[in-house]
This record gives sequence, C-alpha cells and structure tokens, in this order.
Amino acid sequence: MTADIEVICIGNELLIGKVENTNAYWLAQQITGLGGNLRRITVVADTIQEISGAILEAKSRGCDLIITTGGLGPTFDDMTLQGLAAALGQKLIVNAEALEMVKQRCIEYAQKRGMPTEIEMTPPRLKMAIFPEAAQPVINPIGTAPAARATLDASLLFSLPGVPMEMEAIFMQTLAPLIRGMVGEAVFCECSVFVEGIFESRLAPLIDRVMADNVGVYVKSHPMRCDGKPGAELHLTMWAPAGQRPAEVLVKAARELSGLVVVNGGIVQA
Amino acid sequence: MTADIEVICIGNELLIGKVENTNAYWLAQQITGLGGNLRRITVVADTIQEISGAILEAKSRGCDLIITTGGLGPTFDDMTLQGLAAALGQKLIVNAEALEMVKQRCIEYAQKRGMPTEIEMTPPRLKMAIFPEAAQPVINPIGTAPAARATLDASLLFSLPGVPMEMEAIFMQTLAPLIRGMVGEAVFCECSVFVEGIFESRLAPLIDRVMADNVGVYVKSHPMRCDGKPGAELHLTMWAPAGQRPAEVLVKAARELSGLVVVNGGIVQA
Repeated sequence: MTADIEVICIGNELLIGKVENTNAYWLAQQITGLGGNLRRITVVADTIQEISGAILEAKSRGCDLIITTGGLGPTFDDMTLQGLAAALGQKLIVNAEALEMVKQRCIEYAQKRGMPTEIEMTPPRLKMAIFPEAAQPVINPIGTAPAARATLDASLLFSLPGVPMEMEAIFMQTLAPLIRGMVGEAVFCECSVFVEGIFESRLAPLIDRVMADNVGVYVKSHPMRCDGKPGAELHLTMWAPAGQRPAEVLVKAARELSGLVVVNGGIVQA
Repeated sequence: MTADIEVICIGNELLIGKVENTNAYWLAQQITGLGGNLRRITVVADTIQEISGAILEAKSRGCDLIITTGGLGPTFDDMTLQGLAAALGQKLIVNAEALEMVKQRCIEYAQKRGMPTEIEMTPPRLKMAIFPEAAQPVINPIGTAPAARATLDASLLFSLPGVPMEMEAIFMQTLAPLIRGMVGEAVFCECSVFVEGIFESRLAPLIDRVMADNVGVYVKSHPMRCDGKPGAELHLTMWAPAGQRPAEVLVKAARELSGLVVVNGGIVQA
C-alpha cells in the first residue's frame, strides 16, 4: 500500500519571500517518516482562483490525500475555504459545529483573562466557521480557526492553518494516524555515505551499478566541496514493507557503494 | 509593465524533507525585490514525466518567465533537460557550445591541480552537454553544468542548477537584468506595523478600511503571541511604478492603520 500525497501552501508571504516555507519542509519530513509519498508541493497566492485551481489540479493527478496550509483566519486575505468551495462547486454556509468550536475558543480565552464570557460573534469570528456545504470542521487543539476536511472524488482533502504550531498540532492529532493507516506496512529507510576526492561525474556509473544490484534502492548524490576537494553525500533511500527488511537492503547497498568509491580512488568518511 | 514568473524546483530531496528549499525562498526574495511577480512555486520529483508536466502546466498558465532549479548534474537522477525536451517535444542532442563549456571547466580544474589537461569526455561529463535541440546553454560562472534557456510559446524558460551558489551566480548574472528589463518602472515596497493587545478578528475590519482608503496597498496580518498576549505583524506591500511614489502611499497607509489600532484599544510598537 502507499499514500500519494500533495501539499498546497497558500500565502502571498511565501511568494514574496517574506516568510520561509517551513511548513512544507516539516510536512515533507513527517509524511516521509510515516511512509507516505509526497508527490508535489505547490505554493499559491491568496486568491480564490489560485487556490481552487491548485486543488483541482492536485485532484486531477489522482492523489490519495491533499493537504493545504494557510488561509483559515479571520482576515479578508484568508481565502482557503472560499477556494475550496469553488473547487468543490459548493456553497459556503455557516457550519454549526465549526461555529461551536470558534465560540468555545473565544470563551476559553475570555475565562483565562477574567473577561466577560458573552462572546459576540463578529463577522471576522463568524468567517472562521463559514465552510463549504459538505466540508467538516476538524478540531484545532491550540488555535481558534478550525481545520477543514472534504472529499474530492477519490482524494481526501484537509485544510490546515498556516501558523506552524497549529498546523503541526492538527497534523499530529488527525493526519498522522490517517496516513499511517493508508500506508499500512510500508516504511521509509535512509542512510548516507559521505565521500571525498572523487567527482560526481566519476560517481555516476558507480551509483547506476549499485541501484541495478539493489532493487528498490534509490541513490541520490548531493555534491559538496570540502577544503576545495570534490566530494558528495550519497543518500540512499527505500520505501518497502517492513517484511522486506529495507534497512538490511540499504546497509548492503551502502557497503557496495563504499567499496566501489574506494576502488575508484575516492575516500569514504568513517 | 509586469513580469509574471513561476519557479519549479526539481528534486526528490525536497519532497522527502532531506533538504530545505532555500532556493525557492532566495528566488522569491530576489524576484520580488526586482519588482517581478512570483505567481507560483512548484516542487516536483526527479522524473521526466513530473518535470515536463510541471513545465507544461506553468506554460499553460501563461507566465512570462519560468525558472527551474535542480537536476542539471552528471548523475542519472538529474533529469531536467530530459524533462524539458519532453515538454518542448524536441530531441536531445549534444550541444556543441555546452560541450565546450563543460570541457573548459574540466580543463580549468585540472590546471589548478597540476593534472593533465587532456580531458576525457566520459558519459557523465557528456550528459551535462546534452540539450533539447532548440535550447541554448547559459554560462555557469562557478560550476561545471551549464544552465539552459528555451522558449515555450510566450514563456521564456531558464533551467538553473540546484547547488545554491551556482544557482545564485547564474541568476545574478543572467536573470536579474532580464527581469529588471521586463518589469520596467515597477518597484516593490513594503513596511510593517507591529501591534499587540488586539485580536486578529478585531483587526480584520481595520485592515479592510485601510485597503479601501489606499488603493494598491495590500495588507496581510501575521498573527503572533508575545508573552501570552495576542498581537500581529501587519505587513503592507505595494507594486507600482516609481512615478506613483509607492513608498509615500505605504507610509500614509501605515499611519492610518496605526491610528485605527490605537483607537480600538491596541498598542503599536514604536
């Protein structure tokens, strides 16, 4: 089994280089660690057209799970649920369950501060509970805006907030177990061989040979220069059911690769 | 005038969370600083199908410039030029000019090390000079693999290496002047107002009002918590010809916003 996943990050701040896309990096690590297969990351602007377009494109590529980040807050520029509604071809309505979640967070905040707990549902607060008709809210354990869950044909979609702490909390609580279930027995294994004194162009045929000898192992070279000398990190990866002992296969491949590098005049770092 | 730009980052290492996508962040800052409009960032895996698909999708959205990063090296997993050839519907051929560039770098390296300068063009070295028929090589001032330039209907495409230093050097030398020329008189301006003691849901109508009063100014709120209190960075941005004095417009908008925050019980940091 496998889980083909796409991540869509929504936010002008990512496209103008104001904010580094740490959410995509974190999600890539988590998804891979769970054995999932992150197929694509897309970063789009805060417009309904861009958001719905990116969602429909991901759907058309037939992935199992689409995760969006960003754009769930109370301000006008948070347009994810409007974009999702457009992609679903659904109306936006006040979702009673989401409204309850938003209210609850406001009350908790007021209680903590000893403020009156009669919460006025201003338009910006209400906005966080306006969902596409068939979308369901997902509890946000540490922030006000609920996340959203929807179905687009064969793809399941989750819209998470952009604030990293909130995004991470919802992912851990709701998405990690889901992905683990989708993936089943598959695990992801990786290891690295660091080499020096050998050019990437010389490494290329050695990598080809190791991949041919060890089916399922993928080797990617990341060139580095140490002290002016050519070198590389050779990163070996494998997704496979635990029963196939991918860790053992990887170790065998790494040993073969190290041997070939030495025979060809390179140095393998201990 | 404007320059609509898309960036496509190619590399499994980005999708498995092995490497942070610092190239996309750097490019976003540079492009915006030059007055360009980065419309989308896409991250795809090292397969011909994914690469050509992403290029064709960017082309179909009609941007002026497509920049790809990664996948130009000598190893098998570097497939950008193969993906580009598929997108262009062109054959791959040994590009004589690119071949000369690769050779030149190998000779320079050998000379520096006092090694023989009769360079053998092994298949991995040759690979870096195998280009789509109608693509042109672009000089890489600090690395071996040349970059590539091609035309897809109305879109100009540049394929840059993934090694940040090389990508940055080629961008600065070749792409920055090009983008500046495309953009013409437009400049990008930004400033921030830091506020505390006021919720994002309370800020929302103030932001709406400032944007209505100051045409062309975009305000995005980035919520923060300082010492348990709600706060936000309100980031004001504007693209406009220098003649329209966007900096003055922004300062006026920032002052109006600060005033509204104070009137509504918030604190503006000096």
